[in-house]
Amino acid sequence: MTTCIGMIGAGTVGGGVYEIIMNRLNSSSATITKICVRDANKPRDFQIDSSITQVVTDVSSILNDDSIDLVVEVAGGTTFAKDAVFAALKGGKSVVTANKALIAEYLDEIVKLVDEVNADKSKKAVKFGYEASVCGGIPIIHTLQSAYKGDIINEVSGICNGTTNFMLGKMEDGADYDDVLKEAQDLGFAEADPTADVAGHDVRAKIAILAKLAFGITVPIDTIPCIGITEISVVDFAYAKSMGCTIKLVGTAVRQSEFGEHDGALSVYVSPKLVPLNHLLASATGCGNAVAVDSSNLGTASFTGPGAGRYATANSVVADTMRVVNDTCPSSPFPMLSSSIDIDNDFVSAFYIRISFQDGLGIIRSVGDLAESQGVSIHSILQQPITDRMAADTVVTTEACKYSQVKALCELIEKEDFALSAPVFFPMISDY
Amino acid sequence: MTTCIGMIGAGTVGGGVYEIIMNRLNSSSATITKICVRDANKPRDFQIDSSITQVVTDVSSILNDDSIDLVVEVAGGTTFAKDAVFAALKGGKSVVTANKALIAEYLDEIVKLVDEVNADKSKKAVKFGYEASVCGGIPIIHTLQSAYKGDIINEVSGICNGTTNFMLGKMEDGADYDDVLKEAQDLGFAEADPTADVAGHDVRAKIAILAKLAFGITVPIDTIPCIGITEISVVDFAYAKSMGCTIKLVGTAVRQSEFGEHDGALSVYVSPKLVPLNHLLASATGCGNAVAVDSSNLGTASFTGPGAGRYATANSVVADTMRVVNDTCPSSPFPMLSSSIDIDNDFVSAFYIRISFQDGLGIIRSVGDLAESQGVSIHSILQQPITDRMAADTVVTTEACKYSQVKALCELIEKEDFALSAPVFFPMISDY
Repeated sequence: MTTCIGMIGAGTVGGGVYEIIMNRLNSSSATITKICVRDANKPRDFQIDSSITQVVTDVSSILNDDSIDLVVEVAGGTTFAKDAVFAALKGGKSVVTANKALIAEYLDEIVKLVDEVNADKSKKAVKFGYEASVCGGIPIIHTLQSAYKGDIINEVSGICNGTTNFMLGKMEDGADYDDVLKEAQDLGFAEADPTADVAGHDVRAKIAILAKLAFGITVPIDTIPCIGITEISVVDFAYAKSMGCTIKLVGTAVRQSEFGEHDGALSVYVSPKLVPLNHLLASATGCGNAVAVDSSNLGTASFTGPGAGRYATANSVVADTMRVVNDTCPSSPFPMLSSSIDIDNDFVSAFYIRISFQDGLGIIRSVGDLAESQGVSIHSILQQPITDRMAADTVVTTEACKYSQVKALCELIEKEDFALSAPVFFPMISDY
Repeated sequence: MTTCIGMIGAGTVGGGVYEIIMNRLNSSSATITKICVRDANKPRDFQIDSSITQVVTDVSSILNDDSIDLVVEVAGGTTFAKDAVFAALKGGKSVVTANKALIAEYLDEIVKLVDEVNADKSKKAVKFGYEASVCGGIPIIHTLQSAYKGDIINEVSGICNGTTNFMLGKMEDGADYDDVLKEAQDLGFAEADPTADVAGHDVRAKIAILAKLAFGITVPIDTIPCIGITEISVVDFAYAKSMGCTIKLVGTAVRQSEFGEHDGALSVYVSPKLVPLNHLLASATGCGNAVAVDSSNLGTASFTGPGAGRYATANSVVADTMRVVNDTCPSSPFPMLSSSIDIDNDFVSAFYIRISFQDGLGIIRSVGDLAESQGVSIHSILQQPITDRMAADTVVTTEACKYSQVKALCELIEKEDFALSAPVFFPMISDY
């Protein structure tokens, strides 16, 4: 029996999905019979076989078509796409989507809707596949769904945004932030408005999804601390290098461990991190993505690959599609929460703090006093030789402390006369 | 409904499987009702709940028990275990196993048997799970089964043996082969007879399984060229380091590419490889395993994690078990062959050749003449300063050529008067 697919959207990813399913697989088990687009006359960069596939502009033509069992949503956005996905599920159609923003924002509603629809056991259960929503071509969703059934995950952390990873790589080589951003925009990696990437919002949506998969609980997006890469400068890479590290933008979901056991509250956050060069996350170069999972049974496992791109993302959509067709998709898109876990996003870590200052007497002592007042213990002070006494910088690293403590400390430092700007601070992955 | 499991074997992995399923999952969906062991009175390092689980010594007690739907085989070996696995499948029971030797040797028979049993559509289909057979805790089997449905794989290569990876890591730090082997044996990583590990036979079984998964064809084990690590010495690591490389024991299955397209014959082989330090495979340290998959849609993706150990291996057995229980296991353990691919294990690569010699005149010229006679083009000659003229060595690297050409060349070099022993040669991963 052939599964008929209605695809919503026919852009970069959609074109890849169409080509793979219709040309490469060319299988009797799945075929795309309808594609819904905004403008049927717009030229496309892939060939649609009109003898098999009808191009429509009204999504109800897919939603009301009883011959269509599966809706592939590759339009993006959280308005039109949301309505279409929800309507499809309600109508008993399975859904495969690459839409991370939709999933991150409507995670609980999606889980609830799938459960409600599937409560009617007289009908075929609907499935919801979203492998392509996080880390493009890396099969991290399916791996978290199926490889950790008997395990306890302690931490998931990942480089989930290719654009910023590309930019940080160029900055490590000495390029300026503004130049690198322009290069990324010229190459089509970064949007004209790059906020979603450089402010970390894209990673925030993805780590919320990974946290739900790994720990079974929903962490509201707007409660997740999110520090982007806009304050990082070339000098931070020089300091990082002197510590045998690089800087990566990392989404982290980790259970705090007071006594060696990861059984405390769950912290989810997005931030640049100082990463040792021999750490798995340091191996993601260019636009590459990487996810490291730490668990009781496995210790550390890692998964690397392309985070974006037409065929990489399409490959994950097709893999999900074939899981639905072959009925090997898990019945519930997210695991059930078996035990209650507290959320405390005021995470604990060692921190890197770069202070820009006008040179004078007693600066280190002042910083020391302020750190003591906030209960922050200083681990090391690094200072490159001062060449410009009016605009110098120094780096302080801390022992493990809370994010809120370091934030309060940096706010106090900023108020000092010597400070030229707000200190730049972010967590460090300690040597392992 | 509860799936009743009969487990065959109760050693290291079996104990882990029992603990995870019975204590951690403690689920109503799966329970181990029988364990078959050789000696019921032997003390075990895990607690068996006798109110639920019966310990038996006759495997027919499991095979003839209609209440048991799933047999977990963690006994190992290819005699008793083979009979039990085949009988279970014939009897309509699904099987989950960690037994790479069994699968590699009886791959086609297993596929055939599963197909035959499942041809009777009136009965529940049997499933065959073997995630734990390759790279312990890394979910590489399931990933190859499900993430590459719409992709074309060009190459799978992996560090699939933790013992030899541990040994090579120590040798990189300067330790001698014999000392390292003893240390590995003392730590319980290596067997008293280490042949299966150090001669590469373990990796050979695993790469045969990965090749079947990635390319759909069976490459007979005894046709796979297999070079172990026994000839590697500390001096090779010194040469490797001077080239920015390390040495790893790698199983490789690659389609040859004459004109940039990987569409030629499939080569499968096991050999130490010179690996650039920034290559993904170089990141597997200690007992860790790593697999890199190169494909048309994804480019390179990599998967790293623990290759062995009680809970890592048990975790994969449990993941398979839950896939059978939740009915998300693929219907066929291996993909169908869609197109015919030739096998040509006379693989093409650049090679590293270390020649041990007694110093004299004209040695380099002789090697050059012999290389030319075999059509081998020399890329570079590296020679550390000679300190002992009676026992010196030099390294020659070649341009891409065939394994058989280099083998013939080394046989000719060995016959020369200056040669102290057979040259040590293995392929190099070129910079990428």
